[in-house]
Amino acid sequence: MEIKILKNVMHANKKVAESNRAAFKNKKILAINIMASPGAGKTSVIKQLINNFKDILNIFVIEGDIAGSIDAQKIEAMGVSAVQINTGGGCHLDANMIATVLNESNIPDKTLLLIENVGNLVCPSTFDIGENIKMVIASAAEGDDKPYKYVPMFECADFVILNKIDIIEHIEFNHDFFYSGIKAISKDTPVFEVSCRTGEGIEQMVSYVKDKLKSFGILD
Amino acid sequence: MEIKILKNVMHANKKVAESNRAAFKNKKILAINIMASPGAGKTSVIKQLINNFKDILNIFVIEGDIAGSIDAQKIEAMGVSAVQINTGGGCHLDANMIATVLNESNIPDKTLLLIENVGNLVCPSTFDIGENIKMVIASAAEGDDKPYKYVPMFECADFVILNKIDIIEHIEFNHDFFYSGIKAISKDTPVFEVSCRTGEGIEQMVSYVKDKLKSFGILD
Repeated sequence: MEIKILKNVMHANKKVAESNRAAFKNKKILAINIMASPGAGKTSVIKQLINNFKDILNIFVIEGDIAGSIDAQKIEAMGVSAVQINTGGGCHLDANMIATVLNESNIPDKTLLLIENVGNLVCPSTFDIGENIKMVIASAAEGDDKPYKYVPMFECADFVILNKIDIIEHIEFNHDFFYSGIKAISKDTPVFEVSCRTGEGIEQMVSYVKDKLKSFGILD
Repeated sequence: MEIKILKNVMHANKKVAESNRAAFKNKKILAINIMASPGAGKTSVIKQLINNFKDILNIFVIEGDIAGSIDAQKIEAMGVSAVQINTGGGCHLDANMIATVLNESNIPDKTLLLIENVGNLVCPSTFDIGENIKMVIASAAEGDDKPYKYVPMFECADFVILNKIDIIEHIEFNHDFFYSGIKAISKDTPVFEVSCRTGEGIEQMVSYVKDKLKSFGILD
């Protein structure tokens, strides 16, 4: 009974997600679904992408949080349009929430759409919101064992960011163990090590996103 | 329709939780539900509590993870009984899972039962598992804004641990902002600042748990 209902919900969500994806294609929007634990650096990664792309293309940000608008305020302070979704306790964004933003906001053609999901390394992995790419951020401060414990999240990732590498010397973090966990799930998932605080590694991450923007026909 | 079903699920969960709580009372077990984001230090806090209490009372650990048994292995290596619950993708522990462990394991009278929930700062807050006390751990590395974004979790906490304070000098963390967020939710929630790595602040946390053990008649 419960499972049947969950399947219906998932099926309805999938349909709306496909319609979102069609709208993105139509408008040449590249939508990145950014997922991570609370405090892993989702907003910091978004700010780095804004700094690196705002002079060459349109950027629009959707901020998902169960409450508050702290992050949307940070983004608007950078002169970039942002919409805050409050899930009211809900543990993930779903396709309908994104569809509502698409209907109500005038997102221009050829836009990099950065969607910050609710801070949660479990639930968002199972909800397609129509994104083109799934980015998963792990914070080095969370430890090296996350790929072993949160398998569905790392399994769904198109690419992984290992953030906060500037503090790696002050903690215990076994690189080999972390990478073995990722490789056990998917051999080819790219991983970029960055520090949003010092700027280390940001260039490689930006270059990866730039390639995606080119392959979607958004950048020449 | 969906809401009605959720209410039924929550009602059924609540009934099992009450029965767990009655069993704990009967056996003089103090059950602590330990909740936090992935990598905030749940297992490290448990290890500190084990080191401080294992010579004076029984300890039993329940480890909740969506996959794997990394943490249960760490606990058993310390000579303490541990049971691993794998939720198979589920984002929280529920009362039935704990009831199953109670039925199948022979937890002795007068035990400190430490239950590590799934790493998730959202969903576990709404599921009563029959615990006597809810501990919420925030990692300093996650930043100072978590109480503003994850209100239900900090609202349900009987006490809060701010872990990883040893790295606070290497990150940006505004103490006043963090505490204002907690106080806005609940004026009287005790907060203990600790570093499981260096041992700083552990004594105060242990003293708090010791008082609880005394008030439950488990320690003299």
